[in-house]
Amino acid sequence: MMSGRVKEILGYYDSENVGVRSNLARMLNHGRLAGTGRMVILPVDQGFEHGPARSFAPNPPAYNPLYHFELAIAAGCNAYAAPLGFLEAGAAQFAGEIPLILKLNNHDLLLDEHDPISAVTGSVKDALRLGCGAVGFTIYPGSAVRREMYQELQKIAEEAKQFGLAVVVWSYPRGSGISKEGETALDVVAYAAQIAAQLGANIVKVKLPSAHLEQAEAKKVYAATRVPIEPLAERVRHVVQSCFDGRRILIFSGGAREEDEALIEEVRGIRAGGGFGSIIGRNSFQRPRAEAIALLNRIMEIYAA
Amino acid sequence: MMSGRVKEILGYYDSENVGVRSNLARMLNHGRLAGTGRMVILPVDQGFEHGPARSFAPNPPAYNPLYHFELAIAAGCNAYAAPLGFLEAGAAQFAGEIPLILKLNNHDLLLDEHDPISAVTGSVKDALRLGCGAVGFTIYPGSAVRREMYQELQKIAEEAKQFGLAVVVWSYPRGSGISKEGETALDVVAYAAQIAAQLGANIVKVKLPSAHLEQAEAKKVYAATRVPIEPLAERVRHVVQSCFDGRRILIFSGGAREEDEALIEEVRGIRAGGGFGSIIGRNSFQRPRAEAIALLNRIMEIYAA
Amino acid sequence: MMSGRVKEILGYYDSENVGVRSNLARMLNHGRLAGTGRMVILPVDQGFEHGPARSFAPNPPAYNPLYHFELAIAAGCNAYAAPLGFLEAGAAQFAGEIPLILKLNNHDLLLDEHDPISAVTGSVKDALRLGCGAVGFTIYPGSAVRREMYQELQKIAEEAKQFGLAVVVWSYPRGSGISKEGETALDVVAYAAQIAAQLGANIVKVKLPSAHLEQAEAKKVYAATRVPIEPLAERVRHVVQSCFDGRRILIFSGGAREEDEALIEEVRGIRAGGGFGSIIGRNSFQRPRAEAIALLNRIMEIYAA
Amino acid sequence: MMSGRVKEILGYYDSENVGVRSNLARMLNHGRLAGTGRMVILPVDQGFEHGPARSFAPNPPAYNPLYHFELAIAAGCNAYAAPLGFLEAGAAQFAGEIPLILKLNNHDLLLDEHDPISAVTGSVKDALRLGCGAVGFTIYPGSAVRREMYQELQKIAEEAKQFGLAVVVWSYPRGSGISKEGETALDVVAYAAQIAAQLGANIVKVKLPSAHLEQAEAKKVYAATRVPIEPLAERVRHVVQSCFDGRRILIFSGGAREEDEALIEEVRGIRAGGGFGSIIGRNSFQRPRAEAIALLNRIMEIYAA
Amino acid sequence: MMSGRVKEILGYYDSENVGVRSNLARMLNHGRLAGTGRMVILPVDQGFEHGPARSFAPNPPAYNPLYHFELAIAAGCNAYAAPLGFLEAGAAQFAGEIPLILKLNNHDLLLDEHDPISAVTGSVKDALRLGCGAVGFTIYPGSAVRREMYQELQKIAEEAKQFGLAVVVWSYPRGSGISKEGETALDVVAYAAQIAAQLGANIVKVKLPSAHLEQAEAKKVYAATRVPIEPLAERVRHVVQSCFDGRRILIFSGGAREEDEALIEEVRGIRAGGGFGSIIGRNSFQRPRAEAIALLNRIMEIYAA
Repeated sequence: MMSGRVKEILGYYDSENVGVRSNLARMLNHGRLAGTGRMVILPVDQGFEHGPARSFAPNPPAYNPLYHFELAIAAGCNAYAAPLGFLEAGAAQFAGEIPLILKLNNHDLLLDEHDPISAVTGSVKDALRLGCGAVGFTIYPGSAVRREMYQELQKIAEEAKQFGLAVVVWSYPRGSGISKEGETALDVVAYAAQIAAQLGANIVKVKLPSAHLEQAEAKKVYAATRVPIEPLAERVRHVVQSCFDGRRILIFSGGAREEDEALIEEVRGIRAGGGFGSIIGRNSFQRPRAEAIALLNRIMEIYAA
Repeated sequence: MMSGRVKEILGYYDSENVGVRSNLARMLNHGRLAGTGRMVILPVDQGFEHGPARSFAPNPPAYNPLYHFELAIAAGCNAYAAPLGFLEAGAAQFAGEIPLILKLNNHDLLLDEHDPISAVTGSVKDALRLGCGAVGFTIYPGSAVRREMYQELQKIAEEAKQFGLAVVVWSYPRGSGISKEGETALDVVAYAAQIAAQLGANIVKVKLPSAHLEQAEAKKVYAATRVPIEPLAERVRHVVQSCFDGRRILIFSGGAREEDEALIEEVRGIRAGGGFGSIIGRNSFQRPRAEAIALLNRIMEIYAA
Repeated sequence: MMSGRVKEILGYYDSENVGVRSNLARMLNHGRLAGTGRMVILPVDQGFEHGPARSFAPNPPAYNPLYHFELAIAAGCNAYAAPLGFLEAGAAQFAGEIPLILKLNNHDLLLDEHDPISAVTGSVKDALRLGCGAVGFTIYPGSAVRREMYQELQKIAEEAKQFGLAVVVWSYPRGSGISKEGETALDVVAYAAQIAAQLGANIVKVKLPSAHLEQAEAKKVYAATRVPIEPLAERVRHVVQSCFDGRRILIFSGGAREEDEALIEEVRGIRAGGGFGSIIGRNSFQRPRAEAIALLNRIMEIYAA
Repeated sequence: MMSGRVKEILGYYDSENVGVRSNLARMLNHGRLAGTGRMVILPVDQGFEHGPARSFAPNPPAYNPLYHFELAIAAGCNAYAAPLGFLEAGAAQFAGEIPLILKLNNHDLLLDEHDPISAVTGSVKDALRLGCGAVGFTIYPGSAVRREMYQELQKIAEEAKQFGLAVVVWSYPRGSGISKEGETALDVVAYAAQIAAQLGANIVKVKLPSAHLEQAEAKKVYAATRVPIEPLAERVRHVVQSCFDGRRILIFSGGAREEDEALIEEVRGIRAGGGFGSIIGRNSFQRPRAEAIALLNRIMEIYAA
Repeated sequence: MMSGRVKEILGYYDSENVGVRSNLARMLNHGRLAGTGRMVILPVDQGFEHGPARSFAPNPPAYNPLYHFELAIAAGCNAYAAPLGFLEAGAAQFAGEIPLILKLNNHDLLLDEHDPISAVTGSVKDALRLGCGAVGFTIYPGSAVRREMYQELQKIAEEAKQFGLAVVVWSYPRGSGISKEGETALDVVAYAAQIAAQLGANIVKVKLPSAHLEQAEAKKVYAATRVPIEPLAERVRHVVQSCFDGRRILIFSGGAREEDEALIEEVRGIRAGGGFGSIIGRNSFQRPRAEAIALLNRIMEIYAA
């Protein structure tokens, strides 16, 4: 039976069709966090985004696309997200075992642009033929070419929802409009979450915000209205609020591989601030399988508590 | 029964199909100004346009998308306009309670371009599935990329009207062709209203014009033909005239939050000059709900008189 | 019954379908010049092209879109041409009273580019729903972006003809390839007429050519082959010849408002040189209605003689 | 009955559908060279490409589009090629009298770009409604925008062949990659022929190659493999070989008007080298009709011999 | 009966439809290497890529497109790959004799860009009408315009697979992001293989990697994780691993014509490192037919061993 919290969350999406809400429910009701309204997702797009050796040489079994399906299932993640090739390589073998998110655009680092834009590398039709429950899409607010990304997302989201697929948006500010430090500034991350939600995202993924404030106009308002910016939980709370006052599933990414205790502390902050969960990529698949499962279990315990 | 003034206004649109005229009638016959031929619309796109904290921190309940539906209904506005995400968040819950306008393009300030162009962030099909009566679209005449905007609007307006949706155009001159002061110059605002109407807009929204004249060729004509430019009511009258001699619904935006008495004075000028009404965003949702309703009521009283 | 001259002209279009030929016939057989094979058309796109005050302040009733329908009908013009908004505003009320030409692209002067290109502001479908008999399209040969215009025209002309609409092309050389004086040079105007006809235009509209020759290669040929360039009638004859040797309807625009006698003299030159007629915009609607009708009547008398 | 040579040539196209092969047969079996496997085509796109006076003032009857149909028929050409307008002007009157090639892209000289690209000025559907047997398309290999041309040709060729139309490609190297002298260099012309054939052209048209070699890498190979470059017949033979070893119809253009004897000498070279024929434009329509027919007859006699 | 190794390989593609798997099986079960799980493919796109004389003058019979079909069949290759024109020239005559791969994009050297992008020169529909079993597509990772290539490939691959065609991707790093030496650097080649596989390629083709490492971030990882880079077999093994751990068919190109013994040594390295085979173009068709067949036989013997 569906938990009260999941019912409540699905209620936020009452303008979506039954297909979209069913796929959101499938993710919320899958794995170790089923029914809690929290989510931990395994994303593996780093082979494309950073290259195979940088991604998988630290733990060579991860070169094999089947490894990640198995890891996500064994660890009890809510969903597994990857680009077309990685999903094609295992979707048949693991059909029905875990909700899949087809990441529809990707960017490589064989050239590093100042104003990046991902290439569309798959389609809604691909997601359907591979049995996915959602599509994923990355936008870079602040990039001089963000308009093209927003418009690609608009078209993809419209098509995906027509077919009952949920829409997950990675919203990572970058480019001409934003300083390096500003990419994770509190005001900028909150703005990025708002944009993704306004664009129709069902699930929004942002980076953990720092205490930095980037935009002059925003700074004045944060000061005048005394938005709390410490500790991390307060910043998470502000981003959750900025994402339709908690009425959109908002999850945070862990970023580069880091010390376990730091990561755990972040998860505690996300939970305390009302975040819906985490996406844990490099911190899971770049270590031996048993260690990865142990870490994911620790994280899920915190969210489940 | 339909009032004479509403019938007259609908007569201006006798080349449109029944669907478009019905949706115009729904807006003209809704809320406190029903039947008067005047309109006050609540627009809430600032979360996207300026960021969530700058928009909602002054009145935190406004972070919640449901807040604005409820405010527009309680205040008796003719319609509520917002981007895709905000409408998706409440359209089911408030279905049928107030005419909705889906704002189909939006622009964020994580990058501020000299020649801005909004991204298309929703579709006519989205407007239909959410039960909207109209679509909204922003153009920036004077921008080096205005052609692209006009052509996007052309396609959207054509599709919207086929499906019986009304078309509301925000026409805000900006960019390479216009000085900062020129953005609200009388000649430029009048020109912007004309362009929107020629592009097929059913409802045109412009900023209140100042007494400044921007274009050298226009200045000569204003002088030679003695177009009156004082007081505000005369300027409003000139813009109404420039918008097909009053045969298109033309409403004015309030702009940034300002002193109530100044705002009320502007509304009196709009009414006296033959304007059809106002769009009141930040001046309503950035203050406590009760104050907002009181202010909106004062404004509507003026229009209803 | 159809006159011999109209039958002859329709014979030039014997590769077009019945719909196109019927709409050409409707225009040739309408108004005071019906059956003569000559045409005077009222075009009112200046509200968009130059702004409302510059266009209509000299004769304020002209702000009203209905004014122009009525003027064109009263004066006995062959057709009335305007952008989408202006036609939408009166097409229902004046349905069937005069052939309408929907001008499908327009350009405003809130920014003045060196290599201009008009925006597509309406569609063939719009022309059909508004009961038009033709579509109009402006190209600027000599502009660095002319290719885009030609290709837009190609698509629009193909679609229009499929639906039986005639195609009217305004061919105005401008941009990087042409000096200011060259815009009306005889060789350039003749070339512009040829291009429009090759692009499939049924009716070609150009500016009256001056005696200037612009292109070095052309100058040699004009000298060597002794093309006569004086008086105006000879230049008109050369442009008519350049427009498929008179086998395409070619009309000339009057340009800015000017002295009546100069204008009349030009009309005499057009007639003497074998031109098919005139487009008279600012010279008609920028003066009081009675004066405009009187002037148009004088012009039509010359063509009818 | 079909000649052996025509059957052999049609055999080269055995992967094309019956429609395409039938239209190739129609051209090969029409006019004075019917059945010889040789072709002389009259192309008249100079009105667009160079302007009307430069093209037709030397022989004023040529201003009339009907003139060229009649000339091509009277002279016994295999086909007549022209842009949309010129074909629209006579296709009905001369229906069925000579195979027509609709030239689908054209370029004017009101602006002369360093990296030119023609505009698409007609469609496959136009070719069908006008009863054409083939479409023509110009590419400029060496231009910085050649990719756009190749891709336009790809789409047009695919559509044309589906409808049974043959595809004729004018392959004229120009632009950033090529020096002026290189435009007719042997290696470059051979390369241009290869590219057109690889793009799916049924008939390839190139300029006559000079003895110049343009590309450093190619020069080495020509020297090492001792490709003969004198006399002209050898160069023709090399280009024929480069065009699928003679398994594609390859014809040569005459270029600007020149002395008759030089032209005749070139035709002899083309024939001796195994070329399939000539396109003769300015050398025919820029002289009086009788002289043109006499010249074309001399040329055809050489090919027929 | 299908061999165990072929069954195993087909198992990697169990998310593809029966059509795609059947076409992969056809290639794996054709020619001298049938059933071994290894492949040698004859590609002949050099006429387009380098020009006809540079490609075919060393062995003139190769100017004839039929030559290559016959060579590939006689030598027992698994498949023959070529651009549209070359396949059109022989597909009917050699129908059913060897699996064909239509190379859908191509690039010529009449202009050599710093950031190259091939033109799309054929379609999936062309591949179907010519009886091909696969389409081929080249991407240049590292090029500033790679996004456009990836997106073209995405669309083509999606369409091809829908129709049961296999997708072969040539992944050749070039352009602004990569030094000349970096084009064959181990980290770059491995990254290129990963990208092609993530884009949905069924068969990936890369250049043989050198021992050079290009990207600073990658270098650190190769050092830290001790990826072996000598001898060649180890580098091949690393690229195979980077291409989904051997779960995608990965073949290597031979490049420019070279000494036979060096080539044979490379083939031994490919085999030892677990590569699936070779594409042998210039090293086969630029020598007399008998020598080419002898060399291809030596190569196949190594793979078959």
